[in-house]
Amino acid sequence: MLLGAIEAGGTKFVCGIGGENGEIYERVSFPTTKPEETMKQVVSFFNQKKIEAIGIGSFGPIDLTKTSDTYGYITSTPKPYWENFNLVGEVKKHFSVPIGFDTDVNGAALGESKWGAAKGLDSCLYITVGTGIGVGAVVEGKLLHGLLHPEMGHILIRKHPEDYFGGSCPYHLDCLEGTAAGPAIEKRWGNKGVELSNDKRVWELESYYLAQAIVNYILILSPKKVILGGGVMKQEQLFPLIRKEVIKLLNGYIQSKDILEGINSYIVPPGLGDNAGLAGALALAHNSLIESDSLELKHD
Amino acid sequence: MLLGAIEAGGTKFVCGIGGENGEIYERVSFPTTKPEETMKQVVSFFNQKKIEAIGIGSFGPIDLTKTSDTYGYITSTPKPYWENFNLVGEVKKHFSVPIGFDTDVNGAALGESKWGAAKGLDSCLYITVGTGIGVGAVVEGKLLHGLLHPEMGHILIRKHPEDYFGGSCPYHLDCLEGTAAGPAIEKRWGNKGVELSNDKRVWELESYYLAQAIVNYILILSPKKVILGGGVMKQEQLFPLIRKEVIKLLNGYIQSKDILEGINSYIVPPGLGDNAGLAGALALAHNSLIESDSLELKHD
Repeated sequence: MLLGAIEAGGTKFVCGIGGENGEIYERVSFPTTKPEETMKQVVSFFNQKKIEAIGIGSFGPIDLTKTSDTYGYITSTPKPYWENFNLVGEVKKHFSVPIGFDTDVNGAALGESKWGAAKGLDSCLYITVGTGIGVGAVVEGKLLHGLLHPEMGHILIRKHPEDYFGGSCPYHLDCLEGTAAGPAIEKRWGNKGVELSNDKRVWELESYYLAQAIVNYILILSPKKVILGGGVMKQEQLFPLIRKEVIKLLNGYIQSKDILEGINSYIVPPGLGDNAGLAGALALAHNSLIESDSLELKHD
Repeated sequence: MLLGAIEAGGTKFVCGIGGENGEIYERVSFPTTKPEETMKQVVSFFNQKKIEAIGIGSFGPIDLTKTSDTYGYITSTPKPYWENFNLVGEVKKHFSVPIGFDTDVNGAALGESKWGAAKGLDSCLYITVGTGIGVGAVVEGKLLHGLLHPEMGHILIRKHPEDYFGGSCPYHLDCLEGTAAGPAIEKRWGNKGVELSNDKRVWELESYYLAQAIVNYILILSPKKVILGGGVMKQEQLFPLIRKEVIKLLNGYIQSKDILEGINSYIVPPGLGDNAGLAGALALAHNSLIESDSLELKHD
C-alpha cells in the first residue's frame, strides 16, 4: 500500500511516499512561495504515483471543522499569499483519494503514537520548539480538537525574575512562544541558540520556561508521553534540565510512577527523529483511509 | 428508567435517584465520616430501589485505569480514613448493576454536556471554584483522562504584581488553587469571600487569576463552552470581570466568533445550577448503562 504525505510548512513543503508502517520510500521538498507555484510542484510529484490516500499536516491556523464552508483552508496566517487558501480543495481537484488534514503538530503526535515514541499509547503530546512553539495531542486515542485546534504554544507562563527580555510574540509578548521559541532566544542573547550551546545560562532559562509549560500540560491533559522535537531541542542538554525542573515544579503532586520514577522515558525526543513531521502527515493519510473504509462498511 | 447517583465529596455524600433526561426525583445527603459509616447509609438509601445503573462522581485523587488493581479506589487523599478506600468495590458488593465512576468534576462536565449549558456540544470544560479548584473536561465527545485524571486546578499562573499573599497550596504554594480558591481568598483578605461581596479589589484580583487559567485552558483544550460553578462563583459579579479579562489576555489571537462575539454565552454558569454535581453522577450512571448495553450487543 502506498500513501502520500504532505508536510506543509511556512518555509517549505515536504512531500513523501510511504507505507502503512510509517516507512518512507521517497521524499522531496519545495520552497513555500505562492500557492499556485508550490502546489503545482506538489501535484506533479504525486501524479502517476499509485497512492491510496493523502495526509496533510499543515502550518496554521487552519479550519478543521468538517461542516464549515472553509474546511481545509489555511485561514488567518500572516504568511503572504496563503491567507484563506483552500489547501485540501486544491489537492482534491487532482486526486480522488481520501484526504487526511490536520495541524503539522497534531500529525506528528499521531505519527509518534502509531510508530514512534508513544507507540501503543492512547495519549501523548508532541511539542516542537523552533521558529515557533507548536503542540499536538492525542487524547483518549484521538487527535485533540475543539472550538478550533489547540494553540498551546501561546500559553501564559511565569517570567523568570532575572529575565529582562520583554518577549517577542506579536499577540502576547511574553507568552511561552514569545519567551522560549528560537527567535526569542536570539533576541534575548544576541545570538542564535545553535551558537550558544556552551552557555549554561541560556539553557537553564530555556528549561525553566519549557518545564513550566510541560507541567501545565501535564496537569491539564495528563499525557502518557511528552515528546519534544524541533530545532531548539537539538540542544540535547535541555532534556535533563527540563526533566529535573518538571519534577521540582510538580513537587510530588502527581502520584504516577511514570513521572516520579520514569521521567527519563516520560519526556523524550521523537522516536521518528527528523521524520516526525513527514511521518505525521503519513499517519494522517493512514487514518483517513481507515475512516473511509469504515464508512464504506457502514454503507454496505 | 431509574438511575442512581452518588456525588462523593470530602464533606458530604449526596445520593439521588433520577432519570435518563437528567431529572432528579429524590435526593439525600450524609456527612463524610468513616467509610464504613457513610457507605452503610449510601447502601441503605439505594436498597429496594429499582435502579438500572449507578454513577459515582468522586473527590480524588482516584484510580480510573480499568486494568489497574486499584481501579475504583480513592488513592492518596489526605482525608482521614479514606486513603486507599475501594469505593467502587464497596458499591459493587451490594448492587449488581453497571457502575460509572469518575471525578466529581468530570461527572459535572458530562452532565452539563448531556443536559445543561453545553447540551449538544462534543466539548466543554466544567470548573468549580470552592474549597479547592477542580476542572472536568469533555473532549471530542469523551471525558478527558490520560496517565491519571486531569488536575487542572493546580496549574502555575502569573502572580499579580500587587498581590503579596504567598499562596495556600501545600504542594505548590501559589498555583491557581493556592491563589484563587476559597481558602486563599479568606487567608489573603482576612474574611470569607461571601463577606467581601462589595469589595471590588477582591473580585478584580480573583478574575485576574481565573481568567489567566481559562486562557490557558482555551489555548490547550479549545473547549466549546466554559462553565464556572462552585461556591466562589456565587459572586456573580465575577462573570463579566472574567469575560473581559479573557478577551484582553487572548488579544484577538483565537479567531473564533464564539469567543470574540459570543463571550457572554461562552463563559457561563452551570445550566444545571446547584444540581450540576449530582446530575453529573447521574450522567456517569447513564453512560455506564449505554456502554454495558453496547458490550452486550457485541457479545450477542
